[in-house]
Amino acid sequence: MNYTISEITSNKDNLGKEVTINGWVNNLRLLGKIGFIELRDVSGKIQVIVKDQELMEKAKKLTEESCAGCKGILQHKKDDPTKYELALSNLEIHSIAKSLPFTNRVIDELKPNEDTTQKYRYLYLRTERAQKNMLVRSRITKIMRDYLYDLGFNEFETPILGKSTPEGARDYLVPSRVHKGSFYALPQSPQLYKQLLMVAGMQRYFQIAKCFRDEDLRADRQPEFTQLDIEMSFINEEDLFELIEGLLKTIWKEVKGVDIKTPFMRMDYMDAITKYGSDKPDLRFGMEFNDSGNQIYFEADKNESVLEYLKSQRSVYFEEKGNKVKVFVEKPEKEFDYKPYNTLGTARLEVASRLGLNKGEDKFLWVHNFPMFEYSEEEKRFSATHHPFTKPVNIDEKEMYKIKSYAYDVVLNGMELGGGSIRINNMEMQKQVFKMLGLTEESARSKFGFFLDAFEAGIPPHGGIALGLDRLVMLIAGENSIREVIAFPKSKNAEGLMEGSPSDVSKDQLIELGLKLGKSK
Amino acid sequence: MNYTISEITSNKDNLGKEVTINGWVNNLRLLGKIGFIELRDVSGKIQVIVKDQELMEKAKKLTEESCAGCKGILQHKKDDPTKYELALSNLEIHSIAKSLPFTNRVIDELKPNEDTTQKYRYLYLRTERAQKNMLVRSRITKIMRDYLYDLGFNEFETPILGKSTPEGARDYLVPSRVHKGSFYALPQSPQLYKQLLMVAGMQRYFQIAKCFRDEDLRADRQPEFTQLDIEMSFINEEDLFELIEGLLKTIWKEVKGVDIKTPFMRMDYMDAITKYGSDKPDLRFGMEFNDSGNQIYFEADKNESVLEYLKSQRSVYFEEKGNKVKVFVEKPEKEFDYKPYNTLGTARLEVASRLGLNKGEDKFLWVHNFPMFEYSEEEKRFSATHHPFTKPVNIDEKEMYKIKSYAYDVVLNGMELGGGSIRINNMEMQKQVFKMLGLTEESARSKFGFFLDAFEAGIPPHGGIALGLDRLVMLIAGENSIREVIAFPKSKNAEGLMEGSPSDVSKDQLIELGLKLGKSK
Repeated sequence: MNYTISEITSNKDNLGKEVTINGWVNNLRLLGKIGFIELRDVSGKIQVIVKDQELMEKAKKLTEESCAGCKGILQHKKDDPTKYELALSNLEIHSIAKSLPFTNRVIDELKPNEDTTQKYRYLYLRTERAQKNMLVRSRITKIMRDYLYDLGFNEFETPILGKSTPEGARDYLVPSRVHKGSFYALPQSPQLYKQLLMVAGMQRYFQIAKCFRDEDLRADRQPEFTQLDIEMSFINEEDLFELIEGLLKTIWKEVKGVDIKTPFMRMDYMDAITKYGSDKPDLRFGMEFNDSGNQIYFEADKNESVLEYLKSQRSVYFEEKGNKVKVFVEKPEKEFDYKPYNTLGTARLEVASRLGLNKGEDKFLWVHNFPMFEYSEEEKRFSATHHPFTKPVNIDEKEMYKIKSYAYDVVLNGMELGGGSIRINNMEMQKQVFKMLGLTEESARSKFGFFLDAFEAGIPPHGGIALGLDRLVMLIAGENSIREVIAFPKSKNAEGLMEGSPSDVSKDQLIELGLKLGKSK
Repeated sequence: MNYTISEITSNKDNLGKEVTINGWVNNLRLLGKIGFIELRDVSGKIQVIVKDQELMEKAKKLTEESCAGCKGILQHKKDDPTKYELALSNLEIHSIAKSLPFTNRVIDELKPNEDTTQKYRYLYLRTERAQKNMLVRSRITKIMRDYLYDLGFNEFETPILGKSTPEGARDYLVPSRVHKGSFYALPQSPQLYKQLLMVAGMQRYFQIAKCFRDEDLRADRQPEFTQLDIEMSFINEEDLFELIEGLLKTIWKEVKGVDIKTPFMRMDYMDAITKYGSDKPDLRFGMEFNDSGNQIYFEADKNESVLEYLKSQRSVYFEEKGNKVKVFVEKPEKEFDYKPYNTLGTARLEVASRLGLNKGEDKFLWVHNFPMFEYSEEEKRFSATHHPFTKPVNIDEKEMYKIKSYAYDVVLNGMELGGGSIRINNMEMQKQVFKMLGLTEESARSKFGFFLDAFEAGIPPHGGIALGLDRLVMLIAGENSIREVIAFPKSKNAEGLMEGSPSDVSKDQLIELGLKLGKSK
């Protein structure tokens, strides 16, 4: 077994003994009579001292980022007895690195663009930052699993090759060779499978699951992403909130050494919108909205940057008031027109940012009592705010706008960490929701018939949540992009720049699948 | 939080107290003055006693497999004080089950066929057998992760949307909408990604990974399967063997309570073939092959069943010798013609089975020193026995047949649990192997260029293994089919019979992908 630098140096028995350390040449200095090799592995770095002239000649073949095994006596550094160095007695060169677009040592000077760090991902993953991020990600998933297993959860795998039921985002499709003309779909989430596991009586399910969405590209989306997916039977919102609060508390404590306060604050969706203009308010600062009858407004400190921003805005207005500024919009006429609130909410965030207020202690929050449906002006129809399996609170309400649901989001500093709901466990109610969404009975049956059948098999009350792993790790690692915490991310164009995916495939492959390319290539 | 039956009854504080138990009606007896409900959940069963007449009337609405919450005093059973029962004081009916194709209680009588158990998977997963299997699977993955994290491994996720590099089995393809006419491929294994993680310096990688193969259908294959995927830098075969022996020892101990002996026996591929006619010999019985110069043979006990089988065979011969039988084939003329050995190996297994010898203590075994290449008579060309990234032992050998490799399989009772190899970490050698496999330089570059580039970045010596999780769980659970240990398996026709996948998709979906269906639908 090979030991890492930190494993070797943390074992005091190794001091004064001959050990072998394998790693990468982080830096080299071989002029004069004494040479130095800075050797690096995933656990740290160590200085290797070269005195023997034969070894010096051999070491001169090395280049930065070459891979080598150094044997020698482990000793304290002369100028710093808290550190170690290795007095080289034998050198094995595993492989020589040629000229590289960037190296760990000079990446901060070279600042390669993101395409380059993706194309040469194996080099980028050698940097301290990337390695730390990968290890934190691995550690967080371990903590999640330990926490959930301890509470009697089990991890169950659900299929990646499933059925296409387009609702909302687009599915990735997988043509079937055996059943030509038919397609599997990659899951946008394991939603129906996990609900069926509850019908099966599994009671406490989780899975760290790969999910897929063929969405139009946004800055920080990936075609494939990972979520911690949870479902439980015989629970209510309270049980779920407590579970997730305990989980996040454990992660923050173990990874960041920070005690977060539980229970988290809770806020009604309506309050979040009318007080902060957002369903995921950032509570690290105040600037709550007030209602003057015909205006909604907030007050904030002012500085030049704030005024410059406010002057550039057309849809929000402002008045200077001494050292303060009052920012406002006109109150909407219709009761359920949230647009002016959202506009003011955007201004609130920008003003806070320009005042440097968006920092400090992490503020966790549950937003709940989401509306069951939301109206899309473009599509001229209602869709499910969360998803159509969410349990409505007051389904008999005539105004669809006013129907609330047992849906909830966990929010951190204005970012959604995850969301879930208590699910419908009554077939008539499920059918009614499908109908309200404009699904005909035939169409509901053809898409979800197998799921509706399960309502007649003794379906338990159940609910769950999904936390986005990529974003959670990003926040804990202090990164600004999820691509920094994914080993092999896709580019903004959904391309794998390293391996070159997606790519052409052979005619034979297409013929086998019964497919032809359209004209529009 | 809801507690399971076993959680409630294992906490002695609950005795004599009012508790609520949620579950499914496994059986019902409501005649006379006292009624009995047998309530079941994933953890066990409990008898609920109904005395109150109002509750009796309510309970009569229940059907088998309905879901209900029973509140009552937890007490010892009168006739068996080691067991518990619940004296019902309140009944909440969560949902009524209608007529079902089978229930947990009667499945052994009804013996539904496999299509039915797949179509109504949520019912099948209610059976004791299926629930036990799912829980064992979850437990095994937990043990694997704990074992590997303890040894300094980390779990890294590799992409599901990758590049098609057809070699051997067919890739599942995923058409790209953004790049019309281009396709991603689902991974047959994370092979290249995990090797690149070694180039990146990650040193000890594992992943419980979903893999995909669009193969022609065999009895016990699934289009998607799960493997424990491992890769390490700076190791040799010994290190890897020790790691996996420790892992399997831990799993056998914790799940089965069985101490397995380590280190495992090791056998050269050539010995496995010439002594047992198989690269995965079952060593629970002897019947080793002998070589008489012009015959290869083994001796076995005989019984009628054995003789009947042998008489029906055309390619193996036999002679009765007292209470023994000698089974033989003609020795092949060519040195590397293993066909007669394999034929005799098949007979050995069948004879042992008919003698009832294929049972008893688990026999683990490493088979190693596999040939690097194998010749396909159909394709008239050599392919890589393991895969083209395996390190050859003697690449300069002129006869391709004679080139050995650092590939190994771990075998249990004649079944392959997993396989791996030490990898090539020298670009010239990698190119030479590609060339020997008939890949032109252009084609190697177009498929694997990004990987070849990584050889010049300081590539460490490394190796790894992949264990098939489905089969491992199947063997530990004592099942004969991997479909018994997969929550939602595909049928033998690669169909999801429950949700109905693969399925037609809309014309709009195809147009968006730039695809047309061929004629051959």
